[in-house]
Amino acid sequence: MSVMEMSHRGKEFLSIIQKAESDLRSLLYIPPDYTILFLQGGATTQFAAAPLNLCSSPTDAVDYIVTGSWGDKAFKEAAKYCNPKSIWSGKSDKYTKIPNFDSLNQTPGAKFLHICANETIHGVEFKSYPTPAGQNEVLVADMSSNFCSKPVDVTKFGMIYAGAQKNVGPSGVTIVIIRSDLIGNAQAITPVMLDYKIHADNNSLYNTPPCYGIYMCGLVFEDLVEQGGLAEVEKKNVRKGSLLYDAIDGSKGFFRCPVEKSVRSLMNVPFTLAKPELEAEFVKEAAKEKMVQLKGHRSVGGMRASIYNAMPLAGVEKLVAFMKDFQARHDHA
Amino acid sequence: MSVMEMSHRGKEFLSIIQKAESDLRSLLYIPPDYTILFLQGGATTQFAAAPLNLCSSPTDAVDYIVTGSWGDKAFKEAAKYCNPKSIWSGKSDKYTKIPNFDSLNQTPGAKFLHICANETIHGVEFKSYPTPAGQNEVLVADMSSNFCSKPVDVTKFGMIYAGAQKNVGPSGVTIVIIRSDLIGNAQAITPVMLDYKIHADNNSLYNTPPCYGIYMCGLVFEDLVEQGGLAEVEKKNVRKGSLLYDAIDGSKGFFRCPVEKSVRSLMNVPFTLAKPELEAEFVKEAAKEKMVQLKGHRSVGGMRASIYNAMPLAGVEKLVAFMKDFQARHDHA
Repeated sequence: MSVMEMSHRGKEFLSIIQKAESDLRSLLYIPPDYTILFLQGGATTQFAAAPLNLCSSPTDAVDYIVTGSWGDKAFKEAAKYCNPKSIWSGKSDKYTKIPNFDSLNQTPGAKFLHICANETIHGVEFKSYPTPAGQNEVLVADMSSNFCSKPVDVTKFGMIYAGAQKNVGPSGVTIVIIRSDLIGNAQAITPVMLDYKIHADNNSLYNTPPCYGIYMCGLVFEDLVEQGGLAEVEKKNVRKGSLLYDAIDGSKGFFRCPVEKSVRSLMNVPFTLAKPELEAEFVKEAAKEKMVQLKGHRSVGGMRASIYNAMPLAGVEKLVAFMKDFQARHDHA
Repeated sequence: MSVMEMSHRGKEFLSIIQKAESDLRSLLYIPPDYTILFLQGGATTQFAAAPLNLCSSPTDAVDYIVTGSWGDKAFKEAAKYCNPKSIWSGKSDKYTKIPNFDSLNQTPGAKFLHICANETIHGVEFKSYPTPAGQNEVLVADMSSNFCSKPVDVTKFGMIYAGAQKNVGPSGVTIVIIRSDLIGNAQAITPVMLDYKIHADNNSLYNTPPCYGIYMCGLVFEDLVEQGGLAEVEKKNVRKGSLLYDAIDGSKGFFRCPVEKSVRSLMNVPFTLAKPELEAEFVKEAAKEKMVQLKGHRSVGGMRASIYNAMPLAGVEKLVAFMKDFQARHDHA
């Protein structure tokens, strides 16, 4: 019987979801006072669920640091359920920076401070984390696009959430890691499927979960454990990222990455060509070499190489060799 | 590249989701003024989304016919977003009946009338549908467990929703079929992921959808078309259901189905043994013959044979033969 056919309440599937949870717990050193949930609906659903669960009143203050499009979407959705304030936005710099944490003007009494740990579209990644000023010190992070790409000190966060589809499984699974004491205060208007207490009380089996996706996540967690854990995974990602950024920075301006060096993402590497008229040609020639999906997000243009965990070093090496060759053929013009 | 790896905005996946939608449209003869959405979160998410989208105010009246546990859950969730009334409940009869529609006392001005077309746990299935009294005649049906098991006149419904996992695909995909004029009036507190207009405007690609699950649904739709459409599928289901119910009714009381004959589900067949002490033995012996998951839902006990589209006639024949053999061996006692 395939995982797709099993009852989600049968002992076979229970052992699958429990193993997945246990492997994830060991990968991220998640302490016992944190609850792990396997949910649906992507990070976008959590944009609503976080304030619905963590704010008891729509007047509750909440702070958002907006370093890209995803953080901005989270901020806008929150306005339906609390009183969110964007205490810093990188928009005027086209989302290429992360603020100095000391300069942040956090709202006293804010229920949580929200960040998007890695902005998929803009390639901006937090390398360290701000300390929330609120009494409860609740830092909430959308880690959808760098989840399990490196070790993270979970104890610094009140809640971490991530769509699975970048690093840990197929789309359709969302993982929430939350300090258990934050569960149980959802607003009355919270849909049952967005209420963390319902899912925590039912071990993510309140209704039929995306069983096959969770099974796949479990296989990936197992593989990450076998690779030696997230410290080893990070080493590989650093090597891949350095290779690509060095190629960009060493191109004498032929290629250019707009993101401030200290906060460049190891997952999503956006770059442009000094001659924008060559960009379409670059994407076309790369595709001929079987390197696809290098076009930047439609909202920003240029190119973007997404080099998630599953991208091998050889893939980045091939891209870098292609970039050098492309430059050699076009730079004289 | 696997469907799991594709960009959901790439032309490859677009052709997959468009083909799935088009095949579903032809299977159910869905008219052009109905929108098809591929969503996440199961029917349980729709329990909230339906009133959030179809009622503009929390004081709006809505009617629910409650024929089982799922209808009851939908009714209870609605109370967060509108003023729902249970105009008929089968609870006192242990959910074994469907009301006479003429006897229903519908609320004038109700925004919609909600039914659960097939109650998975209790095995009660609507064979015809009530006409909503509300001005707009909006009948809303949860068809999770009999979706695509037979032809349905979609024009009788304002909205149909269904989790995919019973008849059309893996868990993690929810299908909504809604009259397009009903879209666009969601309450201000509606999470963006529960807002039908967002999904309709973005062809179910607002955020990353459960691509692999949608791909699987598309393969199933293709297969159902090849089988000759839902009229042919229904013939097979009638044959399977009749065989099993005849075996129960012909057992001289050894087996018993509590559901009123005229509304017995062709998908979920609950039955008990006259001697309840034999039920555990029945389940155990059946498992030895590789017939599993025959134990009734934990909330009702007894046995339940779920004979969805994917269960072949041979599977039901095997069960019936086993039941006769089991009776022969135990009836003398």
